[in-house]
Amino acid sequence: MNERIIEFLKKKDGYVSGDAIAQRLGITRQGLWKHIQELKELGYDIVAVPHLGYKIESIPDRLFPFEVTRDLDTKFTGKKIHYYEAVPSTMDLAMELGMKGSPEGTVVLAETQTKGKGRLGRIWFSPKYKGIYLSLILRPKFSPQRTPLLTLLSAVSICEAIKEHCGIDSQIKWPNDILIHNKKVAGILTELNAEMDEVNFVIIGIGLNVNNEKKSLISGSTSLREAREEEISRVALLQEILRRIEANYIHFEQKGPKVIIDKWREYSVTLGKRVKVYSHREHIEGQAVNIDIDGGLMVRKDSGLTVKVMAGDVVHCR
Amino acid sequence: MNERIIEFLKKKDGYVSGDAIAQRLGITRQGLWKHIQELKELGYDIVAVPHLGYKIESIPDRLFPFEVTRDLDTKFTGKKIHYYEAVPSTMDLAMELGMKGSPEGTVVLAETQTKGKGRLGRIWFSPKYKGIYLSLILRPKFSPQRTPLLTLLSAVSICEAIKEHCGIDSQIKWPNDILIHNKKVAGILTELNAEMDEVNFVIIGIGLNVNNEKKSLISGSTSLREAREEEISRVALLQEILRRIEANYIHFEQKGPKVIIDKWREYSVTLGKRVKVYSHREHIEGQAVNIDIDGGLMVRKDSGLTVKVMAGDVVHCR
Repeated sequence: MNERIIEFLKKKDGYVSGDAIAQRLGITRQGLWKHIQELKELGYDIVAVPHLGYKIESIPDRLFPFEVTRDLDTKFTGKKIHYYEAVPSTMDLAMELGMKGSPEGTVVLAETQTKGKGRLGRIWFSPKYKGIYLSLILRPKFSPQRTPLLTLLSAVSICEAIKEHCGIDSQIKWPNDILIHNKKVAGILTELNAEMDEVNFVIIGIGLNVNNEKKSLISGSTSLREAREEEISRVALLQEILRRIEANYIHFEQKGPKVIIDKWREYSVTLGKRVKVYSHREHIEGQAVNIDIDGGLMVRKDSGLTVKVMAGDVVHCR
Repeated sequence: MNERIIEFLKKKDGYVSGDAIAQRLGITRQGLWKHIQELKELGYDIVAVPHLGYKIESIPDRLFPFEVTRDLDTKFTGKKIHYYEAVPSTMDLAMELGMKGSPEGTVVLAETQTKGKGRLGRIWFSPKYKGIYLSLILRPKFSPQRTPLLTLLSAVSICEAIKEHCGIDSQIKWPNDILIHNKKVAGILTELNAEMDEVNFVIIGIGLNVNNEKKSLISGSTSLREAREEEISRVALLQEILRRIEANYIHFEQKGPKVIIDKWREYSVTLGKRVKVYSHREHIEGQAVNIDIDGGLMVRKDSGLTVKVMAGDVVHCR
């Protein structure tokens, strides 16, 4: 009902009489008053003037599911959103939901994470109301070997959404960092639940610095607000990210990885660079020459030998 | 305490006086009597004769953790056992335990499963007290691409344990069926929780038909009892399986996959056969010529081209 009241008030420019709202939504004046109080507590600035009625002055900067799903023209992505003020990690919740059979496209969203997960046990710093911290459940019908491509697909989708919504150019550092002016603005974490033959589900985790001021950024990172020098609507940006991921994902399932890989190459800041790749036990140094059809990075070593790296930390050398 | 009473009684050949037991274990005669009743309810046939004392006549055919862990000389495998009379699926419980951080070697064991999981959503028929239905948590320090090898490793370990404990020869049908006289006696299901770079944990699921009579076997399957024409001690066999898995696993981590692959070849009934492999969307027909270092099956097609298959259902052709 709160959602319907907000929708009703948003449609009107000026004041709307309480009677009109109550009648339209089939509730009593008293009931309406109670809902208005609830909405105020959620942060909606609703003014009530005797004889004129109610008016929304401002909406809060929150990722409320009904704000995100309204006008979200996706088929399945973000249709079901589990929203939290604070959680240890959206990844762990999404993993549990995945195991319980939550459908493809289910999103776990939090305003802050106390133990936001980065790759390899690292922490993603998740200050409250500043970023977008989400985990998305996908159920692709392919073998586990293909999942690294979903990391690339998500990276491409985030770059596209940042360009579309904020007009800012960003780049991808292989495999999963999004950079603006060589500083990290977003990270992607992909977790997999699979049999040998078949993926059960994949969780795409995204941590994106949106409205972080300089003081709430760790060294080497940036935010969209820093880059654009103004506040960004997180709801609209999140919608754009979900739309782009779904569009690229459907494309990928129908046409294969080529289009994703081509787009990835366009956004890549790694290809052509001299790199050091630190993986499990060894490190490899050479020229990053290409990305393979399964998402691996091709590195040409000084010996002339070209090797494929499926995972690791990349340092771009000067 | 029940465990200590059983251990005490097992050590003695004849009757043991209640006073001797109570004194040794530091409990009252009344306390002892209560524990004996509990043990009787668990199925231990304990006879009490006035003036003589207690004697174990028989122990029940159950996989009680304290029976399994006693004398189990492994380092970590089976040191912690979660035991259930009946569960939907040991796999799902183990997956939850893995996510909560249960250590490597943790085992989930059930006397029956109402929804025992086979590969690709199939059911593993799990009649009560007849088979061994277990899921084992491993935390290997390697990339997700190597996990198919754990399926092969488990298959080899089961064949070794069956040979050691029952003196029966069994074969492996790629990738995960154990056969006796061309009938399925065990299946292995491997599930993976991973990041792109790193395995978080792997669950090895084993379903093994032990004491199933003919009438409780589905078509195309057999049991150890059928093959050997006598009842098998499930506890001792389970211990042998856990021992073998651990030994092969440690060997694999230290020396790499070669020894596992070599053993696998010995037990293989697939290599050299003409096969049809049904995978995601296609099927491949040809000669199974080898197993690759990452566990893939090499199939030489009639065109002369050899392809590697990582997963699928194999049919051995005549």
